[in-house]
Order: sequence, then C-alpha cells, then structure tokens
Amino acid sequence: MAVYTDITDAELEAFLADFDVGAAVAFKGIAEGVENSNFMLETTAGRFILTVYERRVQREDLPFFLGLMQYLATRGYPSATPIADRAGAVLKTLRGKPAALVAFLPGLSVRRPTVAHCREAGEGLGWLHRAAEGFSGRRVNALGHQAWAEVFAPLAAAADALKPGLADVVRGDLALFAERWPRDLPEGVVHADYFPDNVFFADGRFAATIDFYFAAWDQLAYDIGAAVNAWCFESDGSFNMTSAQAFLEGYERRRPLSVEEKAALPILAHGAALRFFLTRLNDWTATPAGALVRPKDPMEYERKMAVHREGLPGFGGW
Amino acid sequence: MAVYTDITDAELEAFLADFDVGAAVAFKGIAEGVENSNFMLETTAGRFILTVYERRVQREDLPFFLGLMQYLATRGYPSATPIADRAGAVLKTLRGKPAALVAFLPGLSVRRPTVAHCREAGEGLGWLHRAAEGFSGRRVNALGHQAWAEVFAPLAAAADALKPGLADVVRGDLALFAERWPRDLPEGVVHADYFPDNVFFADGRFAATIDFYFAAWDQLAYDIGAAVNAWCFESDGSFNMTSAQAFLEGYERRRPLSVEEKAALPILAHGAALRFFLTRLNDWTATPAGALVRPKDPMEYERKMAVHREGLPGFGGW
Repeated sequence: MAVYTDITDAELEAFLADFDVGAAVAFKGIAEGVENSNFMLETTAGRFILTVYERRVQREDLPFFLGLMQYLATRGYPSATPIADRAGAVLKTLRGKPAALVAFLPGLSVRRPTVAHCREAGEGLGWLHRAAEGFSGRRVNALGHQAWAEVFAPLAAAADALKPGLADVVRGDLALFAERWPRDLPEGVVHADYFPDNVFFADGRFAATIDFYFAAWDQLAYDIGAAVNAWCFESDGSFNMTSAQAFLEGYERRRPLSVEEKAALPILAHGAALRFFLTRLNDWTATPAGALVRPKDPMEYERKMAVHREGLPGFGGW
Repeated sequence: MAVYTDITDAELEAFLADFDVGAAVAFKGIAEGVENSNFMLETTAGRFILTVYERRVQREDLPFFLGLMQYLATRGYPSATPIADRAGAVLKTLRGKPAALVAFLPGLSVRRPTVAHCREAGEGLGWLHRAAEGFSGRRVNALGHQAWAEVFAPLAAAADALKPGLADVVRGDLALFAERWPRDLPEGVVHADYFPDNVFFADGRFAATIDFYFAAWDQLAYDIGAAVNAWCFESDGSFNMTSAQAFLEGYERRRPLSVEEKAALPILAHGAALRFFLTRLNDWTATPAGALVRPKDPMEYERKMAVHREGLPGFGGW
C-alpha cells in the first residue's frame, strides 16, 4: 500500500490539459498496489484512475500492458480502459515517470472467496483468455518457468535460513520442472497475477479484472494454476478442492480445457507456487528488519508448494 | 500517508448493515492522513469516507469532533457530515477501533496557494468560526499555549542537536509567551489544523473544510495565526504579506476582527509556529533513522518562528 509519487494540483492540471476529460473535481491517492502509485480522479466528465509507474514495471513493457487493456476494452472485457489524450497517446509522463489514465471501474474485491466467488472468478479468467485472442502484442513472461532456477540461485541460503533443508527441496522442484514442464499447451495472454485483490465483484458476480502489469505470453493453463493457488487455499493452508473445481467449472463456461491442459494443472500450479515463493523470498530478503512495510510472507507459498508436491487427488486430469 | 487498518469485504458488509446507506459498490483505502485510516466508499446510495481512528486521536474526544461536524452541517457549513446509523449513532466500532462514516465531499486542495486561494481560505475560516457559534461541545486545546513549555522540556536537547543554541532561543520565546500571551480575545471553536491539505476548492473558490481532529476551544484569532503560517509563507521561507492580507480580508468577510485581535496576530502566529515546531520535533525525534515514512521537517517551522521573532511590519495591528 503506497503512493510513491506526490502530484500537486498544478501538475495534475497540466497533465489533464492534454486530455479531453474536463477539469479535476476530486483527487486522492489510493493506498493500493506496491508497484505503482494510484490516484482516484474525478473530473467534470467522469471518474478515472491515474497510475504513475514506479519500480518493477519496465517502461518498455508499458505499450504491451496498455495495448492489451485497450484491446480487451474493444472486445468488451471488463477491465480498466486506458484513456487516450487528444493526440491519441495513452502512455504519458508525469514528474518524469511513465503514467496513464484509465477509466474507473466500480466493484469490490473479496478477501475470503467463497466457492461461488471462485466459480465467478474462474469465468472471469476464461473470458479474459478468450477476449485477449487476436491481440498482436507479445511479452515474454519474465517470471516464467525458464527464469526460476536463475532467480533461485542467489536466494538458496535465504531459503535455508527460513527453513533448514528448503533449498534442496526447491532444487528438487526445479529439476522436476526442467524435466516435466509441459511445452505444447495452448498459449496466449496470461494475466499472471489473477489474485482476489485484482478481481472485482458486484452483487456476487464477476465484475472486472484490474492490474495487468504482469501480463505476458505463456501457456494459458499456467494462469489457472497460479490463480487456483491464490483463490482455493484455506487460511489454514489446506487446499479447497470444491473451490478449485468451481473455479475450473467457471473457467470452462468461457474456454473449455483440453485433456492435456487438465492433466498439466497439478504441475503448473506447483510451478506457479514456486514463482510466487521466489519473488516473496526475494522481497523478504531485500527488506531491512524494522521497515514499516513488511513484505508478504514467503512461507505461505512454501506451504502451497508442499501441498502440490504431495499431490492433490482429484485436481486436474479428470 | 497510510492505511493502518485493513478492512475486509465481510467486515465492511457487517459495518454497513447498521446503516441505511445501501450496499457497497466500491471501496478503496486512501493514502492520506497520518493520524487515521481513511477509505473511499461508494454504495448504491452515494459516496462516503469511512474513517478508522488510530493513534493520537483520543476516543473520549471523538464525540466532540463528530458532534462539531454534525453541528456545522446543520448550520450549512461545508464540512464532511457524519452519517448516523439506524439507532442514531455516529461513533461506531470497526475491528475494535472507533470508526465513523461521513459524506464524501468533492474538491481539490492546493499545494501552492495563490493570493486568491488565501483570500478564499480566509473566508472559509471566518465562516467556520461563525458557523460553530452556539455549539455546546467543549474541548481544551491540548496543544494550546499552556502546554508548550512542558512539551518542550524533554525536547530541548533535540532542538540543540538540530541547531546549536536553538533550545535557548525557544526558552526565550516561551518566556515571552508566558508574559504577553493574550488572554481576553474572543473564544470559540478553532480548527487548529487549517492547512492547505485540509481545505478544498472548486473552480478556485473555497469549497469545504475537512479533518476536524485537532479542533478545540481557544481564542479564535489563534486559528488565524496558525493558518497564516501554513498558507502565507513562500517555499523560500519568506512571508508573503500580500497573501496574509488577502487571508485576513477573506476572513473579515465573514467575521470582522476587533482591534485587539488584529494587534495580537503577530504573537499568536509566532506561538502557533512554535506549536507546530514542537510536534514536528517530537515526531522527528521519535522516528528511527531509515524509516520508510519520514516525518515533516521541524526546521520549516523553526524558520517561521524566526520570521515572527524579527517582526513583520504591516502584519496585524493595522
């Protein structure tokens, strides 16, 4: 939760002068998102989110992210639509940083998703994968399976510090993925961060997806594996099979899965758990003790990895 | 800028069940305010700010603050109106902390007020002082002039560390205030934190005042002194007499000042500068080096004290 960039009224006025969105009426920083600074903006013409891109988001990736959001909007998918200025540009600069204005989307995210939420969220993800079909942009998944061994190498000692012996267990996982990671599943645009805080509901129904700043080109079923990790574990660390089945059922309303995709779900979810474990471990290690903002606990994902390592009878491969 | 209390969708739903404000449609933490956690809430019935009261705000003071806000609303003053639940209560509890729901107010605060903004802000403060007349609540100004010597005592070494010799200079100020602080000026409700970030404008006109959580009973002209410090200094540390005169001119549109009040403005502004210096020095000293959130620089107010110590020909006492 952070706002890293402070925008003055004069800077906002100058920024908005390029757009045809009227004059600012209200403007407040949102305590949301650790990657970017986000502001709620109300103008005489409507409501918007102004995002200033901070660390982690590479400037060269922004045309892909914003282009994807524009494409999804034209396909009727409920995601935040980037607003073009009078010259047609969506990628702007504010305080020397990249910035964009997107339409405000109402909706509430849920903290503890029910089975019904999981079904709806699954449908939202399947719909996203279909809606993104035909998008011409390409972005390699920088946090995809090819990157994990290299990301892990400098973190091995930190993993052992967290839990003795963990580094060897992770090396075993990496060896498994090197040998058995699926390669021929249907590819497309994956959200890659389809967590409950990035999905909005209205009256219990899927309403919108936000935060496309990890989106990339990858095997679509990998996105399901990552999402199921985020949506279908209980707070006690156990896997909720009912939720997972509901998620898949919702997904298949929009995009039926092949036999191969279903069979691959366990290893994809296992790998996705490692991916989030790695970035959390990295953030954990990089944050000085006593910092005001504690990063997310990497052990949550270590436990999810362990669950997938044991295997989940009934998950995938129906 | 902070949100200290995390509210889940389920907690929000339970909280709103007591109110007649419809169901939540959107909910976002606002990166604003260092004292409380604030959330933008949109329901099917309108827009609101939900505040959860954190450190510094004493629970026993909340009935005064909320009662004042309710009173101001009945008098037509543009400030956030607390929303009563079905049982008539405005002071509620959320996650074990005091909380309140207030109506959302549009408007933009300004970072670098122009002379015209100062005139408008002055009118907003004069109007506030008039609108609060007749309010029955009372709260001693815990950060009023009686408190300063005691607040300063444990901070003397910190003051000298900041600037050698400063502790003695402050002791001189305290002696001056002990001898000459005015005692017979008209009293009433002071905002006591009437800074640019707590005042909203719309189309360049005063639109609303927010954040009444320092409000207290005190000499009204003291509020002008504190406000002029906040509104009428340039970023180079110089006092803008034109802005100050505009502020007073605006103020007197709503509440003419007596000769005695005008004559007292220099010492009141000098004292108000000490009051903000003291709390900033305290926060500065209490914050560990390397913390992510740096407190405001106490030296800004040390320089304002120095300006008032020199005297400002033309300010007050016309």
